[in-house]
Amino acid sequence: MNSEIKQQTVLLPHEEQSKRIDCIRSLMSKQNISAILICDKANIYYLTGRVFTGYIYIPLTGIPIYFVRRPVELEGDGTIYIHKPELIPNSLDGKYPESIGLEFDTLCYSQAQRLMSIFGADVKYINASSVMRTARSIKTDYELELIKLSGVKQTNVYAHIPRLYKNGMTDLELQVEIERCSRLEGCLGQFRISGDSMELFMGNVLTGENADTPCPYDFAMGGGGLDPSIPVGADETIIANGQSVMVDVNGNYTGYMTDMTRSYYLGNLNDEAIRAHQCSIDICRALESLGKPGTEAKFLYEEAERIVRQHNLEKYFMGHRQHASFIGHGVGIEINELPVIAPRSRDILQCGNVLALEPKFVIPKVGAVGIENTYVVTEQGLKCLTNAPEQLISLI
Amino acid sequence: MNSEIKQQTVLLPHEEQSKRIDCIRSLMSKQNISAILICDKANIYYLTGRVFTGYIYIPLTGIPIYFVRRPVELEGDGTIYIHKPELIPNSLDGKYPESIGLEFDTLCYSQAQRLMSIFGADVKYINASSVMRTARSIKTDYELELIKLSGVKQTNVYAHIPRLYKNGMTDLELQVEIERCSRLEGCLGQFRISGDSMELFMGNVLTGENADTPCPYDFAMGGGGLDPSIPVGADETIIANGQSVMVDVNGNYTGYMTDMTRSYYLGNLNDEAIRAHQCSIDICRALESLGKPGTEAKFLYEEAERIVRQHNLEKYFMGHRQHASFIGHGVGIEINELPVIAPRSRDILQCGNVLALEPKFVIPKVGAVGIENTYVVTEQGLKCLTNAPEQLISLI
Repeated sequence: MNSEIKQQTVLLPHEEQSKRIDCIRSLMSKQNISAILICDKANIYYLTGRVFTGYIYIPLTGIPIYFVRRPVELEGDGTIYIHKPELIPNSLDGKYPESIGLEFDTLCYSQAQRLMSIFGADVKYINASSVMRTARSIKTDYELELIKLSGVKQTNVYAHIPRLYKNGMTDLELQVEIERCSRLEGCLGQFRISGDSMELFMGNVLTGENADTPCPYDFAMGGGGLDPSIPVGADETIIANGQSVMVDVNGNYTGYMTDMTRSYYLGNLNDEAIRAHQCSIDICRALESLGKPGTEAKFLYEEAERIVRQHNLEKYFMGHRQHASFIGHGVGIEINELPVIAPRSRDILQCGNVLALEPKFVIPKVGAVGIENTYVVTEQGLKCLTNAPEQLISLI
Repeated sequence: MNSEIKQQTVLLPHEEQSKRIDCIRSLMSKQNISAILICDKANIYYLTGRVFTGYIYIPLTGIPIYFVRRPVELEGDGTIYIHKPELIPNSLDGKYPESIGLEFDTLCYSQAQRLMSIFGADVKYINASSVMRTARSIKTDYELELIKLSGVKQTNVYAHIPRLYKNGMTDLELQVEIERCSRLEGCLGQFRISGDSMELFMGNVLTGENADTPCPYDFAMGGGGLDPSIPVGADETIIANGQSVMVDVNGNYTGYMTDMTRSYYLGNLNDEAIRAHQCSIDICRALESLGKPGTEAKFLYEEAERIVRQHNLEKYFMGHRQHASFIGHGVGIEINELPVIAPRSRDILQCGNVLALEPKFVIPKVGAVGIENTYVVTEQGLKCLTNAPEQLISLI
């Protein structure tokens, strides 16, 4: 090991990290959690600005301890190398907390059991997943800058899409060119999803009837995919006259992502598709002014449904053969953060929430239409971070 | 819902599915598991040939039951739609098993607790992760055909790599062209990883000093990556004279993947790099004849180390600033299956195991060299499924 090339364990500015930890501690207090032990990669990134394999121990008071397994060569206050979690108590000076928060919604059962056996049965174990999800749902200015930058880059990529289309292309061929363009713009490719409800590569390009194929995942739109092993997205349909092409591809350029969808078409779309697309834009406009701190997330959903009913488009809303149960979701380090914009959501919008709204429609024999934008919640309503043109765009 | 468009829940031929279930049941018997309840996507794909969100219940005798939440429109023997797991017992005719196997190594703690509370405290719960991992480690002929096809397609893509390189390219630019070429060849992009020890987009292209950057994940090689949020792989280093370029990209073309690495270079490599690359090939040749049913996985590791010591290359083997602790791993639906070729592995090779061997080296100031192949274990030794030329290949 070469000391000259050592790197700091914490890459965040001290003040920024303190802000995040203060927020977490305030939530820990409310749940009577004396200390949390974090090992989820997304949460480690949130707490340090980098990813390592190991654990972060945060007591209600005192300094955080970083128990690192990999990579080698990290250093900084509270950094301790361990090769197994059983070594964690050695560094706690015999002071066991009364209760420990663990990430029970992401930690596998075996690993959770192992961690609990280390501290023993006298300690109370509490699910800390909601503490972390809640803290992360309110973005700091530092985080917002990273999200905005992703929005700018993703918007740059979408501007190229019409010229990436070549006559006779399949949905997949167009997607591959968009993927390449995104990567050259700096897209990290990989994006994080919490839990196991979704699997997806880079994004979704849907055209024609494939948009109506039900998919097993918790996405707004489905598609059959290329193979039953990953049944979502493009299925090598040739993009044809009279059909729409919905593009919803990866906006992760900074570790914090934006989520944006735009709809394209070839030839002439039928009136119903054009009407539904405009309805999606109308819904976004309406919700943008309603989405203020204090607004119930489910109210946004209800408003969207009300507008859809006004236009008699219910049977196409959020799918046709299969319907998604939400119209929006928080976004940040992961694609499925809080708040959730769904009929039974108990989330209430707060300043600094970042959320994607995606009121979409599937029109049989035409394809999917509608838009998706990523917004930050401000006192003045939702401020859009994905500013590509919203109208239906002709591919030629 | 339209009955004309309903699809079968089980896409595997009946005989093929029976073979897999028989193997699982034989392993369940040994662990006194009366029934397993499966919800991991990789295992659902293994059991049905498709992915759905839900649960598969397999009793030691009797037919499997498919509890489906999404997608809509599946049908077939034993297919039951439920919107929550609490409805599972309704379909078991009051016959609770004595013990239930759950995937404790992948199921999150909250979800495991929820499932256990459904069946109650009278049932014994056993970790069934190893049953599934062991069953899946021995590939059927049907699975081998899918893996072979991935090997052929991945080999086709690697043949294009020298012509994808353009003067002055960065590692990332070359990687993006390889990604595009792979996708147009049919690569599904996404590949599955069990657990949370790895995150990676599409693959790894490493050149120069970046190959020596320690990474937090459990990969053979590291790299700093583009951003601390995903610290692995290419970091926009310009490919320079005298440096190697190691390409280890996604071989998932069929739901079953192959894993292959080849090394390229620009200008002249130093002797140490050339020697280390040849050593990697020599190790593969040696292990190919040793890797027969009954061979201990750790013996293969020890043999590799012995050859490395003969050539005085220990300090570069499997990394330089950071060393990986294995030289090979099983591959199939996921990239990290059994057997594990590592010093403390207790795995014993069996006919039908498919494994990747990747004895690699990092030469300071040059980059990574060596090869990786995917093999099937046969009575005659390891049979290679990734047949691209193995020598160092000049990019111009």
